[in-house]
Amino acid sequence: MRVRLRDVAEHAGVSVKTVSNVVNGYVHVSPAMREKVQAALEELNYRANLSARSLRRGRSGLIALAVPALDMPYFAELTRFVVQEAELLGWTVLVDQTDGLREREQVVATGLRSHLIDGLILSPVAMDYAELSAVRDETPMVLLGEKIGGADIDHVAFDNVAAARVATEHLLSLGRTRVAAIGYQAGVVARSGVAEVRRTGYEQALAAAGLPVRASLTRTVAGFQRLEGARAMDSLLAERPDAVLCFNDQLALGALRALAVAGVPVPDEVAVIGIDDIEDGRFSSPTLSTIAPDKAAVAREAVRLLHHRLGGPAAPSREVSVGFELVARESTLGRRG
Amino acid sequence: MRVRLRDVAEHAGVSVKTVSNVVNGYVHVSPAMREKVQAALEELNYRANLSARSLRRGRSGLIALAVPALDMPYFAELTRFVVQEAELLGWTVLVDQTDGLREREQVVATGLRSHLIDGLILSPVAMDYAELSAVRDETPMVLLGEKIGGADIDHVAFDNVAAARVATEHLLSLGRTRVAAIGYQAGVVARSGVAEVRRTGYEQALAAAGLPVRASLTRTVAGFQRLEGARAMDSLLAERPDAVLCFNDQLALGALRALAVAGVPVPDEVAVIGIDDIEDGRFSSPTLSTIAPDKAAVAREAVRLLHHRLGGPAAPSREVSVGFELVARESTLGRRG
Repeated sequence: MRVRLRDVAEHAGVSVKTVSNVVNGYVHVSPAMREKVQAALEELNYRANLSARSLRRGRSGLIALAVPALDMPYFAELTRFVVQEAELLGWTVLVDQTDGLREREQVVATGLRSHLIDGLILSPVAMDYAELSAVRDETPMVLLGEKIGGADIDHVAFDNVAAARVATEHLLSLGRTRVAAIGYQAGVVARSGVAEVRRTGYEQALAAAGLPVRASLTRTVAGFQRLEGARAMDSLLAERPDAVLCFNDQLALGALRALAVAGVPVPDEVAVIGIDDIEDGRFSSPTLSTIAPDKAAVAREAVRLLHHRLGGPAAPSREVSVGFELVARESTLGRRG
Repeated sequence: MRVRLRDVAEHAGVSVKTVSNVVNGYVHVSPAMREKVQAALEELNYRANLSARSLRRGRSGLIALAVPALDMPYFAELTRFVVQEAELLGWTVLVDQTDGLREREQVVATGLRSHLIDGLILSPVAMDYAELSAVRDETPMVLLGEKIGGADIDHVAFDNVAAARVATEHLLSLGRTRVAAIGYQAGVVARSGVAEVRRTGYEQALAAAGLPVRASLTRTVAGFQRLEGARAMDSLLAERPDAVLCFNDQLALGALRALAVAGVPVPDEVAVIGIDDIEDGRFSSPTLSTIAPDKAAVAREAVRLLHHRLGGPAAPSREVSVGFELVARESTLGRRG
């Protein structure tokens, strides 16, 4: 039997209007109320009546999510959340990977498939906002990640400068003074902005503590994979850092591996922290300290912005920032208990 | 400038006809020749002229790939390969995750979106072949994973019985006699077949070595995630196994974590091996021994079967089996050198 809005409302103990507001992605619903309704939607396995809606509104029922790499755990986990959120609004998600290539980002943004999709969520690497704004078609678009350039496009971000600063401050709070950083980037890749803003947060924290940024303690990488982290850590060993901020968890897991091979105890001699809170880091030995962005919120806000845009395409663009938290585990605190 | 077949042929030192055969997925090209041409296609960044082809053939230029979970590394890595292979044939891949739910597998298989896609690659969990065969529409379909039931559907698999047997034999070859297994499944989930066939391989290897299958040394899990592996390993410790076969790498990484927490040295007291060869296991400490299926071949054969099916839908179904290899690392061999 089909689950109706009325059933969801009864289950949640709220009005049908409130359920409708949540399902339609309106923002004037309190977070507590929204969670209540979403729990009921999930428990009753509610699905928007896709085909009827599509006919009524001339929509395809598909949205696209384009990320740089599906096999990077951060994006794989984010994709799962986007699929879940989109389903609540009756959308199926077409997932595309751009490999961070300008050519593919442009194909996605210029709406090659605009006859197929109702909207696009894009995490750009190669193109900046001004470029995307110049080439985009009429398809509603929401961008994820760092805002580079000031164009008028809906946007969900989290404060990467603050994230890297908090991570570095955590290392400093342990009394470490030779805090290295792995994840600087050079050239075109640096334009994606993630490396730049995380670098800024790292350098701000050092400056606030009265410590210099030593070039000998920073490492530039070609990509954010484990192998790059392991190589960079290897080359840092001679500099005797007592802590390392890695600009993502994959780099940090690579660094942990290099330290294990070299027989350097973590965190006793070198404390390690990453950013992203991917699942791997919860089961590594030692477990990985990290900054956990609210991925569920990124997905929820992105899908909601898209949905809202479909209702009123002429509205000015909006920017939503989501929170994060420090998750301190064994790689900085050691084994406890 | 657009890369033409002629350019690829010159680069590879083969005829235009051969390049055309490879691009069109015909099977009567030798593997050596095909690799040569594919290398040239990649080096020259060749892309089939999608829009012209689509118009000519009445195709959408989209295929769908439906997997149980995008955030399981095995499927994330497989997805990357499918996207790469499909691109060579001018296809964009729509990725969908079914969460292993019957309802979603049915929606995918019954061709809700048949007006949008040229074909479907599906890794089923909840539905067996007979069920899929009964509900499918005319859209070409290729299945991945265990063949359960004998229906007439194109299929790519690797020999999971042999994989689990080889993994177990590796543990036995180290002189271990109390070889445990983590990954048995019960009830509906067991129907996906992966757990069943890997169990068969494990039990075959024990039998061949004249060892009993001890219920005290096997563990049933609710899913193939790290947390399940850690819990199962915890509960095995009292039984004092000297080796453990985990039915995938995620379970094995969870087991390694539980052993580290308990202070049990790996592999000295307990050797651990997984199956899948996901990237995480190459950087864990200790690095994870595993069985590496040829994921690139799974992707290549699946895309090729789909392409072939489009050319001649009346042909009898085909089954392709791809290879695997044992990758012995520190979790069974210890730190060397």
